[in-house]
Amino acid sequence: MSDTDDDQELGITESKAGQTGKWYAEVVQKAGLADYAPMGGFIVTRPRGYAIWERLQENLDQMFKDDGVQNAYFPALIPESYLEQEAEIVEGFDPEVAWVTHAGTEELEERLAFRPTSESIITPYISQWVRSHRDLPMRVNQWCSVIRWEATDTKPFFRTKEFLWQEGHTAHRDEAGAWEETTTRLGQYEKLYEEVLAIPGMTGRKPDHDKFPGAEVTTTIEALMPDGKSVQAGTSHYLGTRFAEAYDLYYTDEDEDEQVAHTTSWGLSWRALGALIMTHSDDQGLVLPPTLAPEQVVVVPIWQSETKDEVLDYAAELAAELDAEFRVHLDDRDERNPGFKYNEWELKGVPLRIEIGPNEVEDGEATLVQRPDGERTVADRDAIGEAVQDALDDVYAKLYAAAEETVEERIHEAHGRNEILGTLGRHGGYVKTGWCGDEACETEIKDQIAAEIVMLPLDEDEEPVHETCGVCGEEATETAYFAKNY
Amino acid sequence: MSDTDDDQELGITESKAGQTGKWYAEVVQKAGLADYAPMGGFIVTRPRGYAIWERLQENLDQMFKDDGVQNAYFPALIPESYLEQEAEIVEGFDPEVAWVTHAGTEELEERLAFRPTSESIITPYISQWVRSHRDLPMRVNQWCSVIRWEATDTKPFFRTKEFLWQEGHTAHRDEAGAWEETTTRLGQYEKLYEEVLAIPGMTGRKPDHDKFPGAEVTTTIEALMPDGKSVQAGTSHYLGTRFAEAYDLYYTDEDEDEQVAHTTSWGLSWRALGALIMTHSDDQGLVLPPTLAPEQVVVVPIWQSETKDEVLDYAAELAAELDAEFRVHLDDRDERNPGFKYNEWELKGVPLRIEIGPNEVEDGEATLVQRPDGERTVADRDAIGEAVQDALDDVYAKLYAAAEETVEERIHEAHGRNEILGTLGRHGGYVKTGWCGDEACETEIKDQIAAEIVMLPLDEDEEPVHETCGVCGEEATETAYFAKNY
Ligand SMILES: [Zn+2]
Ligand SMILES: [Zn+2]
Repeated sequence: MSDTDDDQELGITESKAGQTGKWYAEVVQKAGLADYAPMGGFIVTRPRGYAIWERLQENLDQMFKDDGVQNAYFPALIPESYLEQEAEIVEGFDPEVAWVTHAGTEELEERLAFRPTSESIITPYISQWVRSHRDLPMRVNQWCSVIRWEATDTKPFFRTKEFLWQEGHTAHRDEAGAWEETTTRLGQYEKLYEEVLAIPGMTGRKPDHDKFPGAEVTTTIEALMPDGKSVQAGTSHYLGTRFAEAYDLYYTDEDEDEQVAHTTSWGLSWRALGALIMTHSDDQGLVLPPTLAPEQVVVVPIWQSETKDEVLDYAAELAAELDAEFRVHLDDRDERNPGFKYNEWELKGVPLRIEIGPNEVEDGEATLVQRPDGERTVADRDAIGEAVQDALDDVYAKLYAAAEETVEERIHEAHGRNEILGTLGRHGGYVKTGWCGDEACETEIKDQIAAEIVMLPLDEDEEPVHETCGVCGEEATETAYFAKNY
Repeated sequence: MSDTDDDQELGITESKAGQTGKWYAEVVQKAGLADYAPMGGFIVTRPRGYAIWERLQENLDQMFKDDGVQNAYFPALIPESYLEQEAEIVEGFDPEVAWVTHAGTEELEERLAFRPTSESIITPYISQWVRSHRDLPMRVNQWCSVIRWEATDTKPFFRTKEFLWQEGHTAHRDEAGAWEETTTRLGQYEKLYEEVLAIPGMTGRKPDHDKFPGAEVTTTIEALMPDGKSVQAGTSHYLGTRFAEAYDLYYTDEDEDEQVAHTTSWGLSWRALGALIMTHSDDQGLVLPPTLAPEQVVVVPIWQSETKDEVLDYAAELAAELDAEFRVHLDDRDERNPGFKYNEWELKGVPLRIEIGPNEVEDGEATLVQRPDGERTVADRDAIGEAVQDALDDVYAKLYAAAEETVEERIHEAHGRNEILGTLGRHGGYVKTGWCGDEACETEIKDQIAAEIVMLPLDEDEEPVHETCGVCGEEATETAYFAKNY
């Protein structure tokens, strides 16, 4: 940071309620989360952004490991002939594949795809590793980057040509085992959102025309953003036997008979960071739940020259004590005044600020200020650990409650083309309606208001909310959730 | 695993002392660490191999973080024009670059390199983030994969076209700061080898003709393998101001004058896993230090039908107790006999086996067997935690001592062409000799015995071991360490 013009440069100039897209881009850049890369569609994830991703990773990775998932690493490049073994994968991803064609000065005999997803390289190996029913279920996961060359506008974390994610791939004896796996992972994604990101998620299925290429069922967790648009926040696919057949994944059962395995795959990307930033942040900048914040607490001493020593000592001791239990930063910079520091740490999303001035020192206290709403409490120095924990719990609860309110206010029922369009136009969010199952009925809405069916209920047998399709009036077979999306 | 032919399939058939290369490949595959990928030069890192890598990562990452290094993520693809801004980087890596030329069906306007190393994309961003001296030092690191399309034979972990590594990139005010960084990271690599991998390392500099492209100084940690060859086990580069100048990395100092930064970069790859496997393993299979072993202890119950319940209960309770402190696996499979289990866990490198039979149950004891040398001790059930800790410490100490002996026996002085060649031929290892600084003298040795100068002393001013060059007889300016290498 240079010494001049910082105040102007630091502050967010756009408003969340006004130009949401510009505001989002500004928060991402000014909070130091990411920059645009020289190639359109790529970003550079800066240390602050990456630190949040690392914490998210740790949380999810631990859930996986507790549940028997093992991490592995497969090549970033996949031979074209491997992709081609599963026709729907090729069709689905070919238009988006980045191709390596040359190495040094030589042209390769076969083009290699930068992985858009790894079913086509992982399934053949699971197939080698699985022989008998005793080897099942087999679960591997990798944390890696993938490239999907989409032409649409870049939105850091939400939409980038290269993105970080985890992709899990599992094999099971039968449909029941694979389906349980599919919903278990979806449930873990939901848990991650609810307990770590402070975002309530809604789980469901994608309509057939929007499934993962080759999947029998694609389940999804959707999160509603404050601008009324839905984010596909993680997907878990039951792949049936299609991939197992394509990549020769068979096993011998108890009777020594050969059986085809059932497989799943499931992925969650750094789009979760996009949802996190978009959901909680405000016109002062980034807001983070304490679960993921690189610093949970910033201690800001406020001194005059005659009180400097005692204030700094008191603040340093308090910070050191808290450091055993929390992620704490003591901002004792000489060259900045407290107001500047407040703004900077608000911009960067530290959930709790502790102010220490001569009064606090004299009274043996500390002033706690919560980032989301500026709520101030005064805590006894002797009980500071508990007070900080309470304040952080409070911050989490507030963030979750605010996000939950957004969703609850924004699920409406509608019936008939005009009501659907009107409700989506007025309120955003989700519009529930009966659906006949025909993609054409989605297209009709999409063409007029760029909303689509983001979700159907997880339970296929659930009675539709209305007896007839909200668009065409034919018999409804399902409930559809229409929404605009990211 | 299928139910037949397992014994034969499980066992290592090659001997380490005989066909070291084949033995190594067999250990890697049969211990379940890695498989060959369909594309020559690539491997698939299996869960067991990846779990070891994850533990290594955790250890090194924590050292970095304790020291102010921040993780980040930069794009996997780098525009050709960015690579070209630093001439030596281009010359050094161009022949090995994998080029992305197409996305979907479109040809790209500019080719993109799969990163062979990231100075050329990271330095320009550090340049944007650094304005004043207050922003320095700046340290970023990324854990990622790189591709270098070398034509030589694949050796899993030692030599693969794509490999996992970390690459750190830092900027400093001056040479002193950057040089300190260079040696600090080298010291951390040394610590990782000594305290986590149980491998003593030797640190030094690379000769000028073997430096990282564009570096002022390349420092290296070398580890000697049991076959007498040296492995370049990690490198840390002082880059001077060359990259800062090429990518416009300047800062304003205290007097508001513009200054060029000094940069470093440093990397350690999964070659460390190669060194680990090669150093400690034996003709029974993988041997791992307890620091990195996915399971530190395997508990094997030995029962007859009439003792099964009590043995299993006792073993399960003991395993559960140890589980609080160690990574423990209870192998209670019904379908395998103890001998089979011993072989399997020896193959897989579990450092300590605990045998529980009816005698152990009756006497309130447990039999501990150390993987490296089969040393057996009997421990009281009541003091099992301490006994296990002692045994694991013992295993680590034995592994380190054995590796250290290998090195100490294999540093020889030699003078004169024939003595150098003879000593290298007889003993392998390192041959110390005076060197005039001329690459031609290295070439002469290399041409005859495929050994090269792997290292010079870290301290440039150290007096050479001999007054004259061991090859040409001219005045020596340095001590050179010749060795064959991986
Ligand atoms: Zn319809
Ligand atoms: Zn010479």
